[in-house]
This record gives sequence, C-alpha cells and structure tokens, in this order.
Amino acid sequence: MNLNYIKPHEWKIIEEGFNKEHITASESIFSIGNGAMGQRANFEELYTGETFQGSYIGGIYYPDKTRVGWWKNGYPKYFAKVLNAPNWIGIGVTINGKSLDLSTCKVIDFKRELDMRNGVLSRSFIAEFDDGDIVKVLSTRFLSMDIQEVGAIKYSVTPINFQGEIAFSPYIDAGIMNEDANYDEFFWEILDQKETGDEAYILSKTLKTGFLVCTGMKNELILNEFNIDLEKEVSSSDKSIIYSYKTMVNSGDTFSIVKYGGYTQSMNHPDAELCNVSQRQLIKASELGFDSLLERQDKAWEKIWDTADIMISGDIKAQQAIRFNIFQLNQTYSGSDSRLNIGPKGFTGEKYGGSTYWDTEAYCIPFYMSTKNKNVAKNLLIYRYNQLDKAIENAQKLGFNKGAALYPMVTMNGEECHNEWEITFEEIHRNGAMVYAIYNYVNYTGDVGYIASHGMEVIIAIARFWSQRATFSADKEQYVILGVTGPNEYENNVNNNWYTNYLAKWCMEYAIENIELLKENYPEDYVRIAEKVTLDESEINTWSKVAGQMYFPFSEKYNIYLQQDGFLDKELIPARELPKSERPINQKWSWDRILRSPYIKQADVLQGFYFFENIFDQESLKRHFDFYEPLTVHESSLSPCVHSILAVKIDRIDKAYEMYLRTSRLDLDDYNHEVHEGLHITSMAGTWLSIVQGFGGMRNFNNSLSFDPKIPKNWKSYSFKIIYRDHIIKVFKNHEGCKFYNESDTPVNITVSGKEVTIFNKDLVIL
Amino acid sequence: MNLNYIKPHEWKIIEEGFNKEHITASESIFSIGNGAMGQRANFEELYTGETFQGSYIGGIYYPDKTRVGWWKNGYPKYFAKVLNAPNWIGIGVTINGKSLDLSTCKVIDFKRELDMRNGVLSRSFIAEFDDGDIVKVLSTRFLSMDIQEVGAIKYSVTPINFQGEIAFSPYIDAGIMNEDANYDEFFWEILDQKETGDEAYILSKTLKTGFLVCTGMKNELILNEFNIDLEKEVSSSDKSIIYSYKTMVNSGDTFSIVKYGGYTQSMNHPDAELCNVSQRQLIKASELGFDSLLERQDKAWEKIWDTADIMISGDIKAQQAIRFNIFQLNQTYSGSDSRLNIGPKGFTGEKYGGSTYWDTEAYCIPFYMSTKNKNVAKNLLIYRYNQLDKAIENAQKLGFNKGAALYPMVTMNGEECHNEWEITFEEIHRNGAMVYAIYNYVNYTGDVGYIASHGMEVIIAIARFWSQRATFSADKEQYVILGVTGPNEYENNVNNNWYTNYLAKWCMEYAIENIELLKENYPEDYVRIAEKVTLDESEINTWSKVAGQMYFPFSEKYNIYLQQDGFLDKELIPARELPKSERPINQKWSWDRILRSPYIKQADVLQGFYFFENIFDQESLKRHFDFYEPLTVHESSLSPCVHSILAVKIDRIDKAYEMYLRTSRLDLDDYNHEVHEGLHITSMAGTWLSIVQGFGGMRNFNNSLSFDPKIPKNWKSYSFKIIYRDHIIKVFKNHEGCKFYNESDTPVNITVSGKEVTIFNKDLVIL
Repeated sequence: MNLNYIKPHEWKIIEEGFNKEHITASESIFSIGNGAMGQRANFEELYTGETFQGSYIGGIYYPDKTRVGWWKNGYPKYFAKVLNAPNWIGIGVTINGKSLDLSTCKVIDFKRELDMRNGVLSRSFIAEFDDGDIVKVLSTRFLSMDIQEVGAIKYSVTPINFQGEIAFSPYIDAGIMNEDANYDEFFWEILDQKETGDEAYILSKTLKTGFLVCTGMKNELILNEFNIDLEKEVSSSDKSIIYSYKTMVNSGDTFSIVKYGGYTQSMNHPDAELCNVSQRQLIKASELGFDSLLERQDKAWEKIWDTADIMISGDIKAQQAIRFNIFQLNQTYSGSDSRLNIGPKGFTGEKYGGSTYWDTEAYCIPFYMSTKNKNVAKNLLIYRYNQLDKAIENAQKLGFNKGAALYPMVTMNGEECHNEWEITFEEIHRNGAMVYAIYNYVNYTGDVGYIASHGMEVIIAIARFWSQRATFSADKEQYVILGVTGPNEYENNVNNNWYTNYLAKWCMEYAIENIELLKENYPEDYVRIAEKVTLDESEINTWSKVAGQMYFPFSEKYNIYLQQDGFLDKELIPARELPKSERPINQKWSWDRILRSPYIKQADVLQGFYFFENIFDQESLKRHFDFYEPLTVHESSLSPCVHSILAVKIDRIDKAYEMYLRTSRLDLDDYNHEVHEGLHITSMAGTWLSIVQGFGGMRNFNNSLSFDPKIPKNWKSYSFKIIYRDHIIKVFKNHEGCKFYNESDTPVNITVSGKEVTIFNKDLVIL
Repeated sequence: MNLNYIKPHEWKIIEEGFNKEHITASESIFSIGNGAMGQRANFEELYTGETFQGSYIGGIYYPDKTRVGWWKNGYPKYFAKVLNAPNWIGIGVTINGKSLDLSTCKVIDFKRELDMRNGVLSRSFIAEFDDGDIVKVLSTRFLSMDIQEVGAIKYSVTPINFQGEIAFSPYIDAGIMNEDANYDEFFWEILDQKETGDEAYILSKTLKTGFLVCTGMKNELILNEFNIDLEKEVSSSDKSIIYSYKTMVNSGDTFSIVKYGGYTQSMNHPDAELCNVSQRQLIKASELGFDSLLERQDKAWEKIWDTADIMISGDIKAQQAIRFNIFQLNQTYSGSDSRLNIGPKGFTGEKYGGSTYWDTEAYCIPFYMSTKNKNVAKNLLIYRYNQLDKAIENAQKLGFNKGAALYPMVTMNGEECHNEWEITFEEIHRNGAMVYAIYNYVNYTGDVGYIASHGMEVIIAIARFWSQRATFSADKEQYVILGVTGPNEYENNVNNNWYTNYLAKWCMEYAIENIELLKENYPEDYVRIAEKVTLDESEINTWSKVAGQMYFPFSEKYNIYLQQDGFLDKELIPARELPKSERPINQKWSWDRILRSPYIKQADVLQGFYFFENIFDQESLKRHFDFYEPLTVHESSLSPCVHSILAVKIDRIDKAYEMYLRTSRLDLDDYNHEVHEGLHITSMAGTWLSIVQGFGGMRNFNNSLSFDPKIPKNWKSYSFKIIYRDHIIKVFKNHEGCKFYNESDTPVNITVSGKEVTIFNKDLVIL
C-alpha cells in the first residue's frame, strides 16, 4: 500500500482526518528542523497509540557497540549512532482530571499542516471525551531559523460544551532511549537539574562521547488574549521535570500555553555555561514573544526560498513535491557549521548508524553549491578534510600504508559506522566521490585556492589508496581492481567494476594534474604539503603508470563498457519482463538470486557517464543508456534522478519525466513502504538535480555555464534560480521557449542550447 | 602461544601440574562422550576460576533467534543450536566446613589422565587449605558405552594430616544457560522433581522444541572399602536438587562417593516413562556396581579399537595423536541412531549453531564406513534422506522449484542454521557432497539397493537444483554457475568455481546413470519414485544438456583448471613468501584483502581431484598440486588431510608428512588457539584418511580395492585395519615392505602397488 493521503497544495503539506495508521508516517513527513536540531512531528500531549518519538541534535552521537553475525577483521568495534535527544516539546493536558490522548478520545476535524514557506507545523482538532466533554485544540510549533537553539510552541485549548478545570503539564525529559540501539542500552546520563520560576533545565551527558546538552523550557500561560500568572506544581523525577498549571476555564474561553524550549550543547559553548546560555536564549525568545519570533522565522525562510525555490506550473503534485524536497534539505543542513553534515534521514529518524554517506559528495553538494553561497559547499568539503586522519587510520586497518586514506562508507566522526564486509571493505568507489566533490566545487566556484589550502592533501591520500588497491594482472598485462562493490549494491565482490576503475584512474590523474598546478601557482603550499605528507616523485610516477594502464571491461559485441568482469554471463532479461509480484526484488528475492541476476539497484556505469559526461560522446551515452537502463530496477532512492538527467540529455523527455516522478514524491507517497522510519533526505538533492541539471540542462565545464532547457508535456512552465560565482541567474521555461534573468550587478556569459549568450546585469533574455 | 602441555603417551592423554590457564583447554581435550551424551572435563567439585561448563545430549537442540548484521531475504529466523544440558556430575565437597575449590586451595601433584583404551577420565591431586588441612583426592569418571544413558563417578577424599568432618554434596542442576546464546535467554523449563532415598530426578523440557529430559543421580557412600549409610540433608531450589552426606573421617582413611547419573530423553522413551526409565537404568548400574560397569566399558572400547586402531611405531606423538582422533570420533558418534550426526565440536563445546556440515559426507563417512559395519555409514545417509523435505523447502525459500533441494550448510533438524549470505546462499557445493557420499557408500559397500530404497530421491532433487542453478551464458555459449562460494571460503560470490561446476555436472550425470540403473534393475522402485517426485523425461534431457555443456574455467598457459573465473588476475605470490607476522591471514588481514589475494583456505580444485582421482591423470594432478598447493594456507582444519593424501599419490612423502602433522595434533597442540571452545571433531576423520588413504594408499574404484603403502622417514612402521564388505583386512607397513592379513573367512582380492593379490582367509601376505 502506498499511503498517499497527503493533500496536494503548492506550499503546504496537509493531512486531514485522524487515522491512527498514519501516525508514524506523518511523524516523519511533518518533521521540522533548523539545521542545528530537529524533531519528528510527535504530538505535544500524551499519545498512547503507536508512535515513534524522536528529537535529534546536530553532531551529537553515541558509539554503540557493533552487532554483526560473523565477525570479520577490520569491522569497527563501536560506531557512531544518531542519538535520540531529550524531549522538550511535551505538554501533558488534562481536562477536568482526564488526560487528553487522541488514542482514546473521539477525534473530529483533525488537521495537520506543515507550511513550507516558514517551517511552521500546526495541528487542530476537536476531541470528545467519554463523558461528553468537548474541547477544541490548536497547536503551532516551529524551530527558529533565527535563534538556532530555540523552538516555540503555542498550544491552546477551548472547552466547547462545559466549564471546567484545564491543566497544562509542560515537561522536559532526558530519560530517552534510542529506537535504534543494538543492546537496548541507555545512552544518556543526567548531571543536573534546575528549576526556577517558569523555567526548568536538565543538564545531561552522553555516555562515552561525553557531549553535554542542556535541555530547557520556559512557559507562559494565556487566558484568551491575556497573559496570566498561575502557581505551578512541580513533580519531577531523576530524569525529568514536570510543571503543572491549572485554571478554571469557561465554555468558549481559550486557555493557552506558550512553551519555549531547545538545547544548548558542548560543541558550541563551554560546559559550565550551557545552562546559563540556554536560559539567556529562552529569555530572549520570550522577550521577543511568540509572534515576533514567528515573523523572524518567516523572514529567514523567505531568504532561503528566494534562491532555492523551484516553481512548476500545471502540476500541483510536482510543485508540492519539489518544494518538500528543497524544504527538507534546508531544514537538515544550514551550511554554517563544518562539523555537521546531511544524514540520510536528517532529523527525521535514526535508522543507519552515522550520518554521512557519499550521497553528500555525489548529490547534495551540487544542490547547496547552487542555492547557497559557496562557503556552504566548502564547509561540506572541510568536514571530510577534518576527518582525513581517521580515513588514513581506516585504510591502515585494512592493510594500506604510506598515508593512503579510505573514507568510511558512513560516519559521524570520521570512523566507519558500517559493518557488512561487502560494503564497508569493498564499496570503495565512495573514496572517488570525495575527490570528485572537490573537482566539482572548484570547477563550479572557481575557488582553485581550495586545492592549495585543503583539497590537495585529501586528493593525494586517495590517489595513494587507489594505486595500492589496484594490482597488476600478469594475465591481462594491465592494472585491475579486484573484489569491489560498485554503486550498484546488487553486485558484491566483483572484479573490475568499470565505475570504480574509471574513478580510480581519474583520481590519480587529477592528483597529478593538481600537483603540477600547485607547483606552478602555489609553490609555497606545494612545499608545505609535500613535506607534510612526505610526497615523493616515484609515487607520482606509480600513479601515472597505474592510471595509464588501468583495465576497463569492454564488450566489442555491444560496443559498451561492461559494469564488471563477466557481466555478459548473466541472463540479460529486461526488468520490465519480471512479474509485478516479484518486485521490488530486494523484498522478494533471496540475496544470491539478486546477485546473479543482471538487475541494477542504482546507476553504476551511468553514474560514471553522469560524472564525466564531457568525456563520453552522445552516441556512446545512448548505447550505454539503452543497455543498462532496461536492467535497472531503481531500488535505491538515488537512482531515478541520474537516469532522469541523462534521459533529458539524450532527448527522452517522457522517460525523464517517469524517472522524475519516482524521485520527487518518494516520501510523500511512501513508494518504499518505510516513510515511518524517517525521510530520505539525501536523495532529495537528486530531485533538485533532476530539474536543474535534468530538464534545465545546466552544465558547467571549463568555466563555462550552459543550459539546454526542456519541459515535460504536462507542465505549463517551470523556473528556478541558481547562484553561480558572483551571479544569481533565474531560469524560466515553458513550451514557447525560455527566459534567463541575471539578478546580479555584473554581466554573465552562458551557453543556451549550444548558443553563447551574454546576459547583462539585471537584464532578461528571452530565447 | 601453542599450549603444548599434554604429555606424550601411546594410549593416554596426560596433564601434570595444576595451571589455571590450562583449565578451559583441558576441559575440551579431556572431554568424554558415548555417542548419546558427552561432557567437557569439568571438575565435579566447585571451581570458582575460569571454566566453561558443558554437558550435551545427542539430538537435543533449541531454535535460537537469529542474530545478523543486515537482514537478507532467505535467512532463517530461528535455527537449531546445540544445547547445554543439565549437570549431573556435580559433587560439592566440604572439609571441616571449608569448600574444596582448586581455585583457592594450594594444589600439589595434580594429574589428569584420559585413558583412550576405555574412555575413563581420572584426576588426582593433593589440596592444602589455608588453615593447613591437607586432603588427597582421586576421581574417576566415565560415560558407559554399554548403558548409554548412564555415567559413573567415583570420588574419594583422604585427609592426610587431620581428623575431621567431610561432606559430599552431590547434585543435579537444570538451571543451565548456554555459553552460546544470541539473546542470553534460558532454554529449559523445569517440569518436575523427585527425591527418593539416595536418588533424585529432575524432569525438564526445552522451550519451543519441547524435548523432555530426565536428569537423574543415585549416590553410594563408602568409607575405606565399605559401603555405609548416611542420613542425607536436602537443600533444593526450583532448578536443582542437592543432597548432602557428612561423616567424621580419620587421618589416612578414605571417604568416597560413587555417583551414577545421566539422562533419559523423549526421543527414546515416552514422556511419561522418562523418570521411571532413568531410575531403572541407575538402579541397574548400581546393582552392577562401579567396577563391573567399568569392566563392561573396557570390553566395549576393546571391540571398537579392534577394528579402528592405527598403530604407529617410532613416533609417539603421532601415535598419541591418531588414537586421540579415532577415540574422539567414536565418543561422538556410535552409528546406531540415524537421527544423530557428527557435530563439528561433538560433545566438547557449543560453538556453531547446528551440528551437521558437509564434513560428515566428505570426511566422516569414509572413516565410519571402513571401521564399522556398513549400517553406520548408511545411517548417516538416511539422516539426510529424512531431511529431504526440509532441503526442498530451503531451496524454495531461495526461489527454486519443482522439487529441487538445497541441503543446508549446517543443520540439526534439516533447517538451515547459518546466516551469512556468502555461505548460506552461495556455498552450494555442499549439495554435491550429499550425492558424492551416496556414490562413495555404494561404491565401497556394493549396496546398490540403497539407490533404489533411498538414494535416488535425494539424487534427483539435487540434480534438479543444479540444472536450475546453472544459467546459459549467451556470451560463452555454455552453462555457467554464477555467484558461488567454493570449499575455499577465502573467495566469495565468484563465478564458475571449477569444483562446484564439476560437482554439478557430475551430480546430474550420476542422476541420469542411476535412473537408467533403476529402470533396468529396480523397475518397481523406478516407477514408485518417478511417480512420487513427478519425474519427467524432459527434465532428464535438461540435466544431460546442462551437464554436457557445462563451462570449466581453464588456463592454456598453465594447462590447469582455474579455481574460478578471473583467478589469474590475482598476484600469485606463494604463501611461503608472506611474513610470519601476517599469518594466519584470517586473524591478521581484513576480509577484502583475503578475498582479493590468491590464498586458499582449504583444498578446492584439489578437493575435486581427490574426489575424482580416477578421472584425472597423474601428470594433471601434479600440475594442479604444484599450482595450488603453494597458494594454500590451510586455515581450515579440513585442508591438510586432502593435501597429505594427494602428496603421497604424487610421491612427495615429506610434504605429506608435513601436512599430516598439521592435521593430527591440531587440538592436542592447539595450533589455532581455540581449543578451549571445543575440539575439531570432524576434521579428525581427515587425519584417519591421511593415514589410510594417504600413506596406506587405499583406494576403491569399480569394486576393486587397492593399496600403495608408503611410510614417512621417521616412522618405524604403522598398521591399520579396514572393514571392506565382508572382509577385515589388516595392513602393516615398514621400511622393508608391507604385510596384509585377511582376518575374514573368505578370500579377498586386492591390488597392491599395481599388482593384483589374492589373500586367502586368515592368511598373511608379505610384499
């Protein structure tokens, strides 16, 4: 079953009617975040039905003990796990002594809305108790993009058919267990609690990693429009602080609580200051007041949307979907902190230990690079630069030496968080993506200085890895790379995965090229780095030899590169001929059957053609697309976007649109039956790419920016903006043609469908 | 560190001196068993130091919940685990109120002996307490080969320098946890307890599987030579019954307890009768008395040794080792019960869920077939026959159909107990071993009727599997088998493993051959079976086609079959060039490094040459041996024996001897640093093969038995006996020549070193 209950709307995500079966899915879909923290859309009040409570703080992790079937040397003993954080959103509600709990009340007119324009989550409903008491409830919640350590909730209750006592019991609770814990251990220790006035604070510490977090709340009570003072009752435990405020309310009157809350944490402040800072932030928020804080929220998001928005006319579900993707990416990562990254589930769940995959380098960097200033992408690169030592250690564990680095498959702190040998040890193409991202960044931004300041060290360490990992085949008289898993994880431990071999060759050549560049243009940096990493000429010669003699599996018969050695031994039956009942194959087939089948989980050879499109000609791309696409089952969220982009390139707009649909509403329509676990954040960047690089045809090679806009039949028009170096360019496309507007103060040269165009500052070009 | 503390002796395993670091290793090495039950050599009295307490009952298992890293479709959710059983050997000992505990006393003159002639474990020591009290202790224990549900212990204490109160507290305890449990669950439920006179019984039931076991004890007290009656005190819990007997003993007098104990279980008796049967057996044992029971034990073992013994003169460690291997095999499996099998750890530990590997078919059957009557080997075949339905189910889970069977990698009840995809789903050559064992049995015993009565169904189901598992490669225009793991588990998910392809082809051809045989000689059975399995001619044609067009990777350059596709892409550096510090590679290298290396864990292509030695010529064997042996690291206990046998065949006696040493003292010298977990029972059969098929050169093809005896330089002579059809033949070899003695009443024709010889009944031939 696809859930498919979200109402279409240009700017909003809307759920209408109360359905217990949608609760955990909606908790994911309506998640909110501000880059520093985030939370699932759990109810503030008690809910005794099935729910997955989750709040997360950027950068806070716990080294959970590894759990595997059969231990292999090189597996990490511990690995970083996304940590479910203390709860500050909770507000118990009692009506004449009865707990408000949507699982037990009769619920009428339930509506949940997430306004993507400003990141405000609201919920309204009428609840009827067994004894006939009826209340109307409205809650509004957001995490401030302006004061990143603060969130605010306004929660109002109106008795409809009675006069009675209403109590709010706002609380903070650090007694939180991870949903995803290997041994059901508790990951937090409580250090201190502080109660003062209408505020409360709990200082807690993660076990082992020793992160300190102060969770705070500050409450205000309002009767109709007026703030009121109420005596609080306190009922705390060793892990939580609960305040309780009650008052008599007349039928039709509205009793509200405004709760400010959030976290301060030791990555950002001295340990001893955490509670003081938290208090200052909450007081600041409260002094501004809920409405002013909300105004600032509107402005912050307006600024984001100004460059990031994509408008699609004529297809409201496509419009809603692309905005949802852009919105989630911006909630997850704001780009201001190079210690953070984009987790595959963002702040919406905790599946998969660790938070950083090669998704960041391959998919997310282009999105952030084009919609934010270049420091955001740079911070993502620096994140990896800062983890280079750990990547070198990781390679050492696997038997590499002399400063060779292998970046982990997934990580939080630079250490490997994955342990299936065929992935952890063998899916090494990820290492190439690290270098590709540097190339991509420098190519797009022109910031060559980054190579000198940071990039070169990473590039050298990775070139070293590839030259050691390749071995000379006396049989083939070429260098081979044995025992790898490519991006297509439906093949394991194969020899000579074309994508991996190609990336390896390219990385070594790119390393040599940049060493030359540094020698010439940044001689001091060259000397500094060569000394630091003890670079010698002979190893550069080795890279050159290994790259130059790299083997690529090729079929004369089909005139295509083979995904790996022996690929043609498979029975090449197109995926469309598989019975529906056997799809998706990863849920229906045993692993060995998947492995010996020709079916491709996600772009593999085609991922290489996407990365290095400038090197392969159009005819070659067509041949490879026609050979591999029919065998591709797209059971990774990262697959359709690449196919969509390439399909546009070879003028298959219908195919591109089909692929676009698969990527853009993956979570809203719950294609993979797993949205309750959280959203697929990183693949959302792929959706953005499908429009900008796909339909928009944006490319950037050799300091030249080009477009080749196409439009799907059933759209009226679409438009997007990109930031390119010092320029902001707005692109509009409809069936008549396209328009380019240069928002910046200097002219910009672009190529549109092969034709060079100069757009003057603040000028519009119609083509 | 190799432990290497066992004293050499022709017939005994001896440990002298008390060393706490040897306790868990000795508990394994001195294990005793009688085919129905077995136990580690735990002390009877309290021991508070490091110990691994283990008692096991043949056939009793528990379906433990699976634990894996990343779940794959087709993994079993539950699997059978060897169950640690209630303890009946325990005897608490207190001296003037002080517990006897070797972990806290001063221990003098400690000696432990396992007499392999009769399976008696004895232990003697002098213990001095802190307060100066000194006692001498002697314990003797065995599990009756005669009454398989009973064991007996005689435990004596003599005060040396004091007069005082000595108490024995014999107990039975069903409150046992498995050492190897995935979720630390308790696997036993207690149903009933019974105390009567000096006897006690606990009836317990395994959770889920519902096996009932009655654990009983019966005690007798002896002062010096005389039985005495003592009042018992009872202190029981819900899971155990403890009796306590005390008396005053003079210095120099000996107070002894004889404890009979053991199990009756629901596989052998009606549930309601278990405690009655147990009581009858214990009373019977007690009426016979300890000494008579011991005499019967001597006789039972004498009979076993009469046919199974191998004598080696001039090399006492080799002599001790081969007897240890033969002794353990006989302790583990007596052959009388087709529901039992030979676990890799026998009754000496519980590592590895399940108990039956392809080790049974490939290594153990030849041992039992040649040293026992043919029903023993037949029972091992029937074990698999009885599990055919489960093997068909198992294949269905992986997507096979029409009665194709895949036997599990390891099992207890026919269900798969392994879950690493590269093994469970891919190490499918095991399926060929099932058929090879049938062929081997029929070939050796001449019992062709077994094909008609049982074998054919298994052979057909496995031929079906292979024909479905092979796929046609349009590229090679031959059938290929993709995505397998061969016997060399240091390669995973390879294409066209030569051994697997060869075995597959052979199985299908053997199926066709036997269908013809049945049609001709057993037409009624043919019709019955063809109907039962809905056999049709077209599938037989398919087998013929697939077998006939099977692809085998081959190197023209080396004129050898390749272990798998692409093997020559590896860097073929001989294992002897690896630094010692990197051996064994499975402890020093990461898994990916092992996989892409050329190193072979155990015979793979050579395993095929061993099985089908009659098909390949001597020159071909030499070429393959010379190519693969230098790359073989023998990190499986099953590897050296095959190499030893083949080395003799190509006249490399020194190499064969080197390999023999690796296999024969594996546990006694703890080569792999893991003897504390239990012994390597199944590979012990390989040691026997190294002598009989290796040095002795015994072969049996086409109803012709042949020998080609060779002898290592440093042995004076060796001899062994084999049972071949109706004959018992004794073989003696020294440096002068060899002798064959025909113990049976009819003449036998054999071939010795190429020369045909008839040995008349009760006659000796000297060559």
